[in-house]
Amino acid sequence: MKFKIEGVFPPIPTSFDNDGNILHDKIKANLARWNATGLHGYVVLGSNGEYVSLDEKEKCAVWETAREAIPREKTFFAGAGAESMRAALSLVQHAARIGADAAMVVTPYYYKPQMNAAALIAHYRAIADASPIPIILYSVPVYTGIDLDVSIVIELAKHPNIVGIKDSAGNIGKYSEMIRAVRADFALLAGSGGVFYPALCVGAKGCVPALANVAPRECVEIFDAFKRGDHARAKEIQLRVYALNAAVTAHWGVPGMKAALDELKEFYGGPPRLPLQSLGDVERIALKKIMRDAGVIK
Amino acid sequence: MKFKIEGVFPPIPTSFDNDGNILHDKIKANLARWNATGLHGYVVLGSNGEYVSLDEKEKCAVWETAREAIPREKTFFAGAGAESMRAALSLVQHAARIGADAAMVVTPYYYKPQMNAAALIAHYRAIADASPIPIILYSVPVYTGIDLDVSIVIELAKHPNIVGIKDSAGNIGKYSEMIRAVRADFALLAGSGGVFYPALCVGAKGCVPALANVAPRECVEIFDAFKRGDHARAKEIQLRVYALNAAVTAHWGVPGMKAALDELKEFYGGPPRLPLQSLGDVERIALKKIMRDAGVIK
Amino acid sequence: MKFKIEGVFPPIPTSFDNDGNILHDKIKANLARWNATGLHGYVVLGSNGEYVSLDEKEKCAVWETAREAIPREKTFFAGAGAESMRAALSLVQHAARIGADAAMVVTPYYYKPQMNAAALIAHYRAIADASPIPIILYSVPVYTGIDLDVSIVIELAKHPNIVGIKDSAGNIGKYSEMIRAVRADFALLAGSGGVFYPALCVGAKGCVPALANVAPRECVEIFDAFKRGDHARAKEIQLRVYALNAAVTAHWGVPGMKAALDELKEFYGGPPRLPLQSLGDVERIALKKIMRDAGVIK
Amino acid sequence: MKFKIEGVFPPIPTSFDNDGNILHDKIKANLARWNATGLHGYVVLGSNGEYVSLDEKEKCAVWETAREAIPREKTFFAGAGAESMRAALSLVQHAARIGADAAMVVTPYYYKPQMNAAALIAHYRAIADASPIPIILYSVPVYTGIDLDVSIVIELAKHPNIVGIKDSAGNIGKYSEMIRAVRADFALLAGSGGVFYPALCVGAKGCVPALANVAPRECVEIFDAFKRGDHARAKEIQLRVYALNAAVTAHWGVPGMKAALDELKEFYGGPPRLPLQSLGDVERIALKKIMRDAGVIK
Repeated sequence: MKFKIEGVFPPIPTSFDNDGNILHDKIKANLARWNATGLHGYVVLGSNGEYVSLDEKEKCAVWETAREAIPREKTFFAGAGAESMRAALSLVQHAARIGADAAMVVTPYYYKPQMNAAALIAHYRAIADASPIPIILYSVPVYTGIDLDVSIVIELAKHPNIVGIKDSAGNIGKYSEMIRAVRADFALLAGSGGVFYPALCVGAKGCVPALANVAPRECVEIFDAFKRGDHARAKEIQLRVYALNAAVTAHWGVPGMKAALDELKEFYGGPPRLPLQSLGDVERIALKKIMRDAGVIK
Repeated sequence: MKFKIEGVFPPIPTSFDNDGNILHDKIKANLARWNATGLHGYVVLGSNGEYVSLDEKEKCAVWETAREAIPREKTFFAGAGAESMRAALSLVQHAARIGADAAMVVTPYYYKPQMNAAALIAHYRAIADASPIPIILYSVPVYTGIDLDVSIVIELAKHPNIVGIKDSAGNIGKYSEMIRAVRADFALLAGSGGVFYPALCVGAKGCVPALANVAPRECVEIFDAFKRGDHARAKEIQLRVYALNAAVTAHWGVPGMKAALDELKEFYGGPPRLPLQSLGDVERIALKKIMRDAGVIK
Repeated sequence: MKFKIEGVFPPIPTSFDNDGNILHDKIKANLARWNATGLHGYVVLGSNGEYVSLDEKEKCAVWETAREAIPREKTFFAGAGAESMRAALSLVQHAARIGADAAMVVTPYYYKPQMNAAALIAHYRAIADASPIPIILYSVPVYTGIDLDVSIVIELAKHPNIVGIKDSAGNIGKYSEMIRAVRADFALLAGSGGVFYPALCVGAKGCVPALANVAPRECVEIFDAFKRGDHARAKEIQLRVYALNAAVTAHWGVPGMKAALDELKEFYGGPPRLPLQSLGDVERIALKKIMRDAGVIK
Repeated sequence: MKFKIEGVFPPIPTSFDNDGNILHDKIKANLARWNATGLHGYVVLGSNGEYVSLDEKEKCAVWETAREAIPREKTFFAGAGAESMRAALSLVQHAARIGADAAMVVTPYYYKPQMNAAALIAHYRAIADASPIPIILYSVPVYTGIDLDVSIVIELAKHPNIVGIKDSAGNIGKYSEMIRAVRADFALLAGSGGVFYPALCVGAKGCVPALANVAPRECVEIFDAFKRGDHARAKEIQLRVYALNAAVTAHWGVPGMKAALDELKEFYGGPPRLPLQSLGDVERIALKKIMRDAGVIK
């Protein structure tokens, strides 16, 4: 592969105005600033990019904008999942044409009782067979209700065009089990910034944390400290940013992450698309306190 | 309203060939046969219509086909939900233009932790305010992970353009609670054929059962028996079809329902879109036995 | 059998003083009043009897008190489950000695992942084989986390000494499935007063509702109305008492039921054993409103 | 405190014969062997000790046997929870009299909907106030369905006689959050051997793993390697024993752990009390393979 799946890759937000229209300039400006922080790449149109609220034309436009703003030495993962295999494959092919390095494909999730091992394996294999770019599995049970089983991951990791997984469940035990069982160059990316350091300890290659949008330097520092063997420093930062991570994920979700970007001033957060609701004043005050405790604002 | 929300309204399947292309002729032929069975109308593009696997253009085409094949005296509900408010509203407006009587709008469900009362109420109010046709709420927790709370339904039932709910959870206690609290002409439609008769007992107006695709006469007979006060007959049929209902919903889902249609010969079932998997031979044999026990084949 | 498993059987509370000591006189006085209401019998030491908070000696003492106060023509079910088979059997044998008509045996539930069909079937068979009195299965997933599967019930219903089930999940679809599959004299007792009437509609023989402690006449009237074919009346009462049922079960549990008894004046409710907490003033005001709406106080 | 809450503390099994009678000699013999492995102490009558299947007299007898066999320099935690506060306190006082160093008190769990923060905090405070020995909180959601919330732990950690928590959920994110918020000498003990090393990384003091019954040396080696800063070695063992841990916990539970002890030859496993079922031949073969992969047998 010509790109690296190692490091910190924030799932960047899609910027909207108050009517829900996409603001491509804001996406570019945000990327310009993140580019200066040591991040190793980006996921464009993950859950934090509100991909479920964009139509196919909008998705391609956002990827094109991102492609212009992401330097070639940083990795560009395109979030490209859909409920049907044909729709997912169509998105993956678009992403390849636009120049994404790899496609991150979420598990199909609507027909949960039927999404057994046979269906999931068939889905990913068909896409990986036909995709011009490598595929990363994406399991995010908090949103999908589907927790990709270790046995399925092990099976799919045998496919030469499936090169990793972003697992957002944050179950370190499951990470350990997976890492021992798959080939050495199959990359596990933790999907939650709250367990980045312990995930690295058991063998994760990196992280795709919403947290890295609002605390890019802290996330990179956890990675760097771990790499140089400074466990005390990695642990110290990890514990300090834990509450902020929860605030912009489990607690307030995408609207919380966008509100935190607004508080940082240098970034554009803005509103989410409806029915997601922007944070109210009370929540914003609580969020600011959490950001101060984490050391990302004063 | 010019249409009735009382009776049996199957959520019809979308017919595909083996490559996943839509077969409009098969949809029409199926409707022609169902029209002869006493059914009171149809839901076009509910969960059983695989709406999540169709793009917007395909959805409009299926609605147009259905509009041609559904007589004006039968009710035409268009399944028209989407993750974002703007996309859902766009679909509802399409459905109105095509001539649907009402739109059935599923709860948004991806950002589950953020789909609180405020978000859900805002979503439905904005759509109902702008929709040219009445709105039916649609709660289907088995697929969405969101069980619309009674308090939210009570609040939304105050909106003049929200006229009913399809609740697929099958919780008869919840049905009772809802029915006592909402206005008399707000229609509760049971979403599961397995509880049609007891739902009628506590005040439901009708049902939207996948079961009615494969056992239309039995479902209509439950309704008619109840209406004429023949509880023994309604109970007898209900218990007899229970296992078949489970087979084409919880157990084998859309692929099971399509396989049952194929067994009936007079209808076209065909394959689902991938990654949904067609039933294998072993399952088909088990399904046939269940259909025989229910009395829908010999 | 010399006793009837048909009708309304409240799971009576165990009366305590403020130090948590059992008040046997209050239990007797309560039973004397319930005896005058048309109830068909009682469950002594079900979940509402706080059986998990009593030691074995206390359980026997409560059963003895109940035996004295329950007329022979009313059915006396003894709640007699325990985590281990040997402890459950010991309790069942005690209950038989004291003169209970049947023993209601809750599913073991602590080792949930190991409580598969083999373990549960072995548990109940061993007890039923050795018990001098008939056994009623008791499934109450809200407390135990174990929802006894229909296939297990069907298997156990073949045992001559297992004569019924109290199923508190309130899933009317599951009730239908069970009733069609088991022998005609195997009694399904609904475990929730919120679905008593629809449960009767699909074939339940009766109910074991916490609601019947605080609204005995209403529960008996639902049963009587159904028996004489007056569905309108049964439905009317069912919908009227739904919220009260929720208040004394899902919402406020045993402390709510005890507080409601205190509001009725003629009964003794009193405090639960710690750590269960008595209702506060705000909750008591809300409870009174619900009781007034249900027509059980003015 | 005169004892240490740091290191590896297996929750030892209670030994039974085929009729379910306690074998005190086997308990002693097992302890004698574990004493030679570097373990730092024991939990006697945790979930793995089948405490829910023992009556009060049996519990005291097992503690007495353990007290004789556990050297004073190793920590003796007594598992001493019960559904009611009065029963739990009585057990804690027994444990103190027998000479346990601290009592591990499981959350009450039967009345789940009522086990809110107020009830849980009241329960633990009342016990800690009256207990002659320190209290360790015990949260084990797989069995109880109650996951002790971080906010409750933080509140209870302020009590001088509540000195730690055994948290079996294995959620490393939650561990991080807790450790940052509680006083420095409040000990977090991981409840699962599958996350021992990453738990240490974020600040846990030790572990109470069923795994340590069957792989005591490996668990001690993880702890020692971590203490001397040898992360590579700690990780290597952790990944190697992961599957064995799953086998004797989530997968086959107490019967699996007992079967593994039998395979080791030097220990007595024996049968669990019914309704827990001993492993069958097929499972024993699979278990042996897992033990070989983990390096605990050849």
